[in-house]
Amino acid sequence: MSTFVSLDVQDVRFPTSRTLDGSDAMNPDPDYSAAYLTLRTDAPDEGTALVFTIGRGNDVQSAAIEVLAPHLVGRDVEAVLADLGGMYRELSHDSQLRWLGPEKGVMTMAIGAVVNALWDLRARREERPLWLTLASLDPEELLDLVDFRYLEDALTREEALEILRRGQQGKAERIAALREHGVPAYTTTPGWLGYSDEKLTRLLHEARDEGFEMVKLKVGADADDDERRMRIAREVMGPGYPIAVDANQRWDVSGAIAAIERLAPHDPFWIEEPTYPDDVLAHAAIREAVRPVRIATGEQAANRVLFKQFLQAGAIDVIQLDATRVAGVNENLAVLLLAAKYDIPVCPHAGGVGLCEMVQHLAFFDAVAIAGEDPRRRIEFVDHLHEHFEVPVRIERGAYMPPEAPGNGARMHGASVAEHLFPSGPVWAAQVPASAAAL
Amino acid sequence: MSTFVSLDVQDVRFPTSRTLDGSDAMNPDPDYSAAYLTLRTDAPDEGTALVFTIGRGNDVQSAAIEVLAPHLVGRDVEAVLADLGGMYRELSHDSQLRWLGPEKGVMTMAIGAVVNALWDLRARREERPLWLTLASLDPEELLDLVDFRYLEDALTREEALEILRRGQQGKAERIAALREHGVPAYTTTPGWLGYSDEKLTRLLHEARDEGFEMVKLKVGADADDDERRMRIAREVMGPGYPIAVDANQRWDVSGAIAAIERLAPHDPFWIEEPTYPDDVLAHAAIREAVRPVRIATGEQAANRVLFKQFLQAGAIDVIQLDATRVAGVNENLAVLLLAAKYDIPVCPHAGGVGLCEMVQHLAFFDAVAIAGEDPRRRIEFVDHLHEHFEVPVRIERGAYMPPEAPGNGARMHGASVAEHLFPSGPVWAAQVPASAAAL
Repeated sequence: MSTFVSLDVQDVRFPTSRTLDGSDAMNPDPDYSAAYLTLRTDAPDEGTALVFTIGRGNDVQSAAIEVLAPHLVGRDVEAVLADLGGMYRELSHDSQLRWLGPEKGVMTMAIGAVVNALWDLRARREERPLWLTLASLDPEELLDLVDFRYLEDALTREEALEILRRGQQGKAERIAALREHGVPAYTTTPGWLGYSDEKLTRLLHEARDEGFEMVKLKVGADADDDERRMRIAREVMGPGYPIAVDANQRWDVSGAIAAIERLAPHDPFWIEEPTYPDDVLAHAAIREAVRPVRIATGEQAANRVLFKQFLQAGAIDVIQLDATRVAGVNENLAVLLLAAKYDIPVCPHAGGVGLCEMVQHLAFFDAVAIAGEDPRRRIEFVDHLHEHFEVPVRIERGAYMPPEAPGNGARMHGASVAEHLFPSGPVWAAQVPASAAAL
Repeated sequence: MSTFVSLDVQDVRFPTSRTLDGSDAMNPDPDYSAAYLTLRTDAPDEGTALVFTIGRGNDVQSAAIEVLAPHLVGRDVEAVLADLGGMYRELSHDSQLRWLGPEKGVMTMAIGAVVNALWDLRARREERPLWLTLASLDPEELLDLVDFRYLEDALTREEALEILRRGQQGKAERIAALREHGVPAYTTTPGWLGYSDEKLTRLLHEARDEGFEMVKLKVGADADDDERRMRIAREVMGPGYPIAVDANQRWDVSGAIAAIERLAPHDPFWIEEPTYPDDVLAHAAIREAVRPVRIATGEQAANRVLFKQFLQAGAIDVIQLDATRVAGVNENLAVLLLAAKYDIPVCPHAGGVGLCEMVQHLAFFDAVAIAGEDPRRRIEFVDHLHEHFEVPVRIERGAYMPPEAPGNGARMHGASVAEHLFPSGPVWAAQVPASAAAL
């Protein structure tokens, strides 16, 4: 028997704004950051998770995780890990904390960190990677992890059970195939707004040489630049090669339609975040106007209810769930089930710091036990900051290969955490803060 | 010339969970709380605002306000106050902080506190109550306060200008009428779930005796209880008297429709928060099914884009904006304009601590300069905690009477703040915390 003894949060920030890596139309100067949670037991062992932010406010995010400590500290570890559906609902339904959302923003991401750290601990105790821990559960166990509140008009418990039962058939074969071929990645590395046309061209060539079968460009700051960069990309990659574009919420409805019409001759594969990420009706209107161009969103969608509405409204073609935006693995399980019900592919959002390492587990689990094989499934890949993680992602021939090491992928090297602690770590203390400390 | 010198936040909590005042189907044990902001200048003078929460997490909310200090401290006060549209957009568009929402949750409420404190300071310097400061602006000045991003598919700048110009006609007469008759209130005081039938009956009689022309009951915990309490209320108040009910998000779509059908024979005036407050499509489905029963929501709607969607979808009959849920006066101005465009009445949410004092200014401003006279306008009233405010609300013959004292209404007595500081103030230090400190 073991007990939770502490919930430690560290404010870790990488000074990425100094190089414009990660620059896009809405986020000109991100400092990729993590509110980094270590949930300790007296076994002793620990679970790890992080919330990805882009700089200022990472301290607020850290404080939000810390207020959840009374839900865990002193509790029996085995009992909590045996009922992660119950703990997730306890956290999500804490009425005083729920008021701060509800089910959105800083407090929901904090709950997600705790839920994800619990899953990390559980997977480590099982000595499995998270994706396999999830894929090893039977349909009834998975069903109990979901919060069906507010879902039943789109997905009943019975429908979910049927999807989960279907997901059991052929599971072993899919696990074997996954270990051989992985899940295709697409890369955003070439497409940041801050890069020159020469750098764009060079990185596009590199992407194809490395075996990526899709790339993505950032757009939305300037229509002429967007058109030129999209044209360059099409010329470099040739006809038919999937080139997605990402507007990072920059447009309103008419602006999105006009911008997409301008890019359409270059055959964009999907348009991502054309407008405000909660605007279901706007996405539906844009999708209707720009068919057959696909609409993708989800990296900033706070919860299952928003995804439900996107699906009910027929507003999107691709769901881009994120590992740390919602209330953790459990909330994302609901999103995977909704996507399977509506037959919409889940192409997870990644990048930032640790998002690739974490979200891949959800895609592997989806491929094995929820939606199963789906040629539309791709995981975003950005080649940043992986060296700071104990189990960095493994990309082979343009595909994510499933990790076999235990856990959820969030654990960083101790030295990386220490070096990037904000504001006391050497990376920050040694230099004038670029943009994170002051404006 | 003066300069902002500090942004001080205090964690103030009232132990209301000890008496069950404020209990509802989703919030069984609220400790009405305020992240209480004082924005100081070297004039010296100060602006005040608060974010209402219900206990745990009020410290997170306070921390979120504090991270905004670099946007203000050291800046010229006159320049900032002369361009509050600019400051609101600067805060809302700070990309690193926006990531934590976007435009929702803890960080948006923090921005709202700063924006509202700036308006308090501006009104005090003009020696006017906030409602009159706003009503004194001309249409172009008001227009510049709004962030039209993501609104243009429902409300263009030109349409807004037309509404604002129309609002100027007859303004002086409406101000005079407001000072004579106020804006009707409705009271939620009788209807808390924790109260006995006897207490309910007594408080209903008192409400009518005091001149209130509408009351509201909490529902959603138990269908039999709801039906019985609604029946009692109808018997006490008689046919035709408006009795609203509030489910505090307790139902999903089918549950809401069934519950409303059960209450319908007792003629509920509106059903408030039947389900998750961001679920536009669910509200639309419920409204369609229960016509002509009205649907109301908004107290937990995070921003103008969500209100826009409710209006576009024809999903609600009543908008219940809140003074501290969104990014402040400026965001609520957009909501008032949207409501005027769609001819939906705004009946603000109040109660909690300080919400009545603050939100009345928005209703008075709406009555004077936006929607103008509207017999459907009512402001919620709950008779809790007003004694802690320097300018408590004044209710006469069931109506809110407009304050003439300068400011936005948020300022508390210093002694009240000191006494309720969490966890060091005498109210908390002297007793075992009921529910706020631990679980």
